[in-house]
Amino acid sequence: MGLIEVWAPNAARVDVEIGGARRRLEKRPAGWWRSETNLARHGVDYAFFLDGDGPLPDPRSAWQPFGIDPPSRLLDHALFPWTDRGWQPGPLSAAIVYELHVGTFSAEGTCDGVQKKLDHLLSLGVTHVELMPVSTFSGRRGWGYDGVDLYAPHEAYGGPDGLKRLVDACHARGLAVILDVVYNHLGPVGNYLARFGPYFTKRYASPWGEAVNFDGPGSDEVRRFVIDNARLWLADYHIDALRLDAVHAIFDASALHILEELAQETEALSARLGRRKYLIAESDLNDPRLVRRREVGGYGIDAQWSDDFHHALHAFLTGERAGYYRDFGSLADLSHALQHAFVYEGQFSPHRGRRHGRSTAGLPGRRFLGFLQNHDQVGNRARGERSSQLLSDGKLRIGAALVLTAPFMPLLFMGEEWGASTPFRYFTDHQDPALGDAVREGRRREFAAFGWRAEDIPDPQAVETFERSRLNWSELAEQPHAALLDWTRRLIRLRKEEPALADGRLDRVHVAWSETNGWLVLTRGPIEVVCNFRADAQRVPLPANGQRISLLASAADAEIDESAIRLPGESVAVVRGL
Amino acid sequence: MGLIEVWAPNAARVDVEIGGARRRLEKRPAGWWRSETNLARHGVDYAFFLDGDGPLPDPRSAWQPFGIDPPSRLLDHALFPWTDRGWQPGPLSAAIVYELHVGTFSAEGTCDGVQKKLDHLLSLGVTHVELMPVSTFSGRRGWGYDGVDLYAPHEAYGGPDGLKRLVDACHARGLAVILDVVYNHLGPVGNYLARFGPYFTKRYASPWGEAVNFDGPGSDEVRRFVIDNARLWLADYHIDALRLDAVHAIFDASALHILEELAQETEALSARLGRRKYLIAESDLNDPRLVRRREVGGYGIDAQWSDDFHHALHAFLTGERAGYYRDFGSLADLSHALQHAFVYEGQFSPHRGRRHGRSTAGLPGRRFLGFLQNHDQVGNRARGERSSQLLSDGKLRIGAALVLTAPFMPLLFMGEEWGASTPFRYFTDHQDPALGDAVREGRRREFAAFGWRAEDIPDPQAVETFERSRLNWSELAEQPHAALLDWTRRLIRLRKEEPALADGRLDRVHVAWSETNGWLVLTRGPIEVVCNFRADAQRVPLPANGQRISLLASAADAEIDESAIRLPGESVAVVRGL
Repeated sequence: MGLIEVWAPNAARVDVEIGGARRRLEKRPAGWWRSETNLARHGVDYAFFLDGDGPLPDPRSAWQPFGIDPPSRLLDHALFPWTDRGWQPGPLSAAIVYELHVGTFSAEGTCDGVQKKLDHLLSLGVTHVELMPVSTFSGRRGWGYDGVDLYAPHEAYGGPDGLKRLVDACHARGLAVILDVVYNHLGPVGNYLARFGPYFTKRYASPWGEAVNFDGPGSDEVRRFVIDNARLWLADYHIDALRLDAVHAIFDASALHILEELAQETEALSARLGRRKYLIAESDLNDPRLVRRREVGGYGIDAQWSDDFHHALHAFLTGERAGYYRDFGSLADLSHALQHAFVYEGQFSPHRGRRHGRSTAGLPGRRFLGFLQNHDQVGNRARGERSSQLLSDGKLRIGAALVLTAPFMPLLFMGEEWGASTPFRYFTDHQDPALGDAVREGRRREFAAFGWRAEDIPDPQAVETFERSRLNWSELAEQPHAALLDWTRRLIRLRKEEPALADGRLDRVHVAWSETNGWLVLTRGPIEVVCNFRADAQRVPLPANGQRISLLASAADAEIDESAIRLPGESVAVVRGL
Repeated sequence: MGLIEVWAPNAARVDVEIGGARRRLEKRPAGWWRSETNLARHGVDYAFFLDGDGPLPDPRSAWQPFGIDPPSRLLDHALFPWTDRGWQPGPLSAAIVYELHVGTFSAEGTCDGVQKKLDHLLSLGVTHVELMPVSTFSGRRGWGYDGVDLYAPHEAYGGPDGLKRLVDACHARGLAVILDVVYNHLGPVGNYLARFGPYFTKRYASPWGEAVNFDGPGSDEVRRFVIDNARLWLADYHIDALRLDAVHAIFDASALHILEELAQETEALSARLGRRKYLIAESDLNDPRLVRRREVGGYGIDAQWSDDFHHALHAFLTGERAGYYRDFGSLADLSHALQHAFVYEGQFSPHRGRRHGRSTAGLPGRRFLGFLQNHDQVGNRARGERSSQLLSDGKLRIGAALVLTAPFMPLLFMGEEWGASTPFRYFTDHQDPALGDAVREGRRREFAAFGWRAEDIPDPQAVETFERSRLNWSELAEQPHAALLDWTRRLIRLRKEEPALADGRLDRVHVAWSETNGWLVLTRGPIEVVCNFRADAQRVPLPANGQRISLLASAADAEIDESAIRLPGESVAVVRGL
């Protein structure tokens, strides 16, 4: 404390308003400005003026008690009473991830609200809690991908201390925490960064706003801004891993790609802290370079999401073929995804109109996340329907079984474990009515292309849209939710208990299937996951003769013999050879 | 022959005008159209009509007898009587490259004109002739970087057969041929590609025109267009290597970068032809990934230009510090370049306003080209001055000695070997007066920033600007040209004769220097290249005591003793330890 600093390379003069007075900052090398003052203490509000223009929040503000608007508030991270000394996260190879949105997970809609539900997560058996973005964004309600004060946890979620309390409580229960961070763009409202310096570039076109300047003039400080943000979460907030949003929209032609630099810095930070930190990328590129080791020219990211696995599973189970699901739908695709993480490893993608992806050969399963649902796949639907609204109970259980026995790090989306009846919709809270209208209209237009009527598209700006998306915890004990929750719990327990399911070698994964008859057998060592997708019962042949015991079955009357399993319609059995 | 084909995925109808009549093409899969007709024979003219709109030249036209305008002319590559059976190019580690511009190299300004001068190149001792781009561009005169018919050698240079005759003649004399190809943009005039398909994209901003679509919808065929173009030169024209222009303006976020795919295809083609083909990249990225092996995540390009070596050498010798020379100027920079190819391996570049580049550790010298001059470094000056117009004879000789004893593939620019008195200027021949004016004005504006008056900037559109740039071969026998030519020849001979100069291991290169006293000693095994940059004589200390013999000296009265060499002002001596 005692120091106010800001990078503002284009300003001729920078002032800070603090303690009721304006102070001029002293110019330092490389575009930095600073002022030493006793006024700069924990809890004190301040704002910047650039060449007399302001007040503006600090680009690195640690605390935005009034949301995106100034002032910023000083925060001393050393004051928080952490109790997680000695904490170490488990390895990714054993991780079971649970993604949640702080605002709708609990009745409170805060980090403290999440905390109250941790016992549920513990009893479910997940190992990692993944929080959707928490950086301050415009309004109170939102998914968080339009954050603008990247260093300041959203006040409506409980602000900095609320997040720290949650992380500390997770660690106390043996749960690791993953935080979703967005480095590909900033939100459209409250984004003052361009006033401070060359944070953005026109060299690349990003789908959501100006692309971040990772390789143009002045980019060293922009890269530092991002890397320091990652360090903030990992070091000061004790976060165990970052989920990097949509890295395909991070453009960087530098000889050292920002993702590789981030991986280097994360490795160095882990060593310094004596606590292993991880990076997980969401990527649309199907590019294994992201997760290959740096020694062989990779970026050294620890894992990446496999949208292909999701799309193959979802398209097959639902029969949907619109949009990107056009590229998927067969059991052959699903089988390929189970064995290679990607379906597209260089072949032509009709939806993209070009070849896509590259072979994952040699990479272990722990480098990929697999899921039946996530916030995007649910929330980007017109009405935010979950798989439980789209699939029969039987198919839903098969989907869960495949996710939780696949060689990838499984991820569940909040409420998925009990087939929550609440949707997860797209919601915003833009204070600017014109922007609110634009978002509403944009969403209507988007879904009109798929035949939706405007009046059937929930209004993103409406409070009800947000409230409808809140989990209803009272349904947990009711059927059919309680039974599905039990199924999910048993699958998670099975995954933890069976060493063969932790074997990440993709070349050991075998899949047999019949497109015509609608069955699939996933083999992982002695374990077989036998799926009957048909509505009626059938005998599913097994890859080799032998005696098996049933470990888990979604329907009561599966009959196992030496060469086949007779499964009721739309059911799955997990068996182990003796 | 007998077949007319074109890719036009957006057209509803495609016709070809051939033999005085229009024929409708048949629609084929994936956006292709074709017509089989006996009219399609070698030498027959044709043009396309898309949805009735035309005539348009064939995007893959092999021959544009009237320049950029239609018609195209059919060409049967099998008709050319090649005489180079059994030809194999020498390895890049032994290459000495000579870059030339076909239009100004000879009095004729054609490939046949170049042919007449091959004996000069042979007696000079170079091993590779590098041709500036020959693909058809707007007008008769130009550097060639605004080519639009990428498959058709410029008619003013002698067209397809002229180029083949030149390559065949080079091979007959043991000279390999490198061709400069431009895949980062197409020229502004005569570029009809966008009418045919999605060749371009707005996702990336290229400095010279629309960026080529290497990763968007429809990009498979655009990539094929580029790869087939490379194969055309390497297979049908017997070109030995391609110089890929400005690959930093090739944007491709695909999992398989187009440059890596090109390298794979080139390797496969080499195997199929039984003749080794090479790729050399011009790159502004200082990214060693380009030339690292594919096994370690590189793209597998054979070599890349080292602009840093040029800039370090040029800035130090001339004292110039404008523009990008701002980043260079010390003997420390030159020393770094001699040992690492790049000066910028990740440190801050003031000119770029950011950190730049990455370590070349582990790469051999043959992966880089080093030069004192090239077409850009000469021609992009306001008046196209060569080093011989900027440097004393002594410094010019030191520069040549360093290029030709450095661990990199040396490249000379036409006329450099004798210090040609003719400049190499920027010239164009745009038929559209408005574009001509824009180019003229743009150039004036560019140099106004460096203090040039408009009337001192040669007019790019003027025939005199082109003619002034033509080499004057009559000066070859005159002094001081004859003496400099002799010096260049002797350096080339030395490079070929001394095995230590062929040792590409950069960690074996040692450099000692004194910034204060203005000397530098480059050590390569037993060879020492001792440079005195000062105007007056001085004793240059040698790294180790020992007996040496002089191999070559630019001034007569160098005195060698066991621990130092006394060199006259602005002179260089190459010595070998005994």
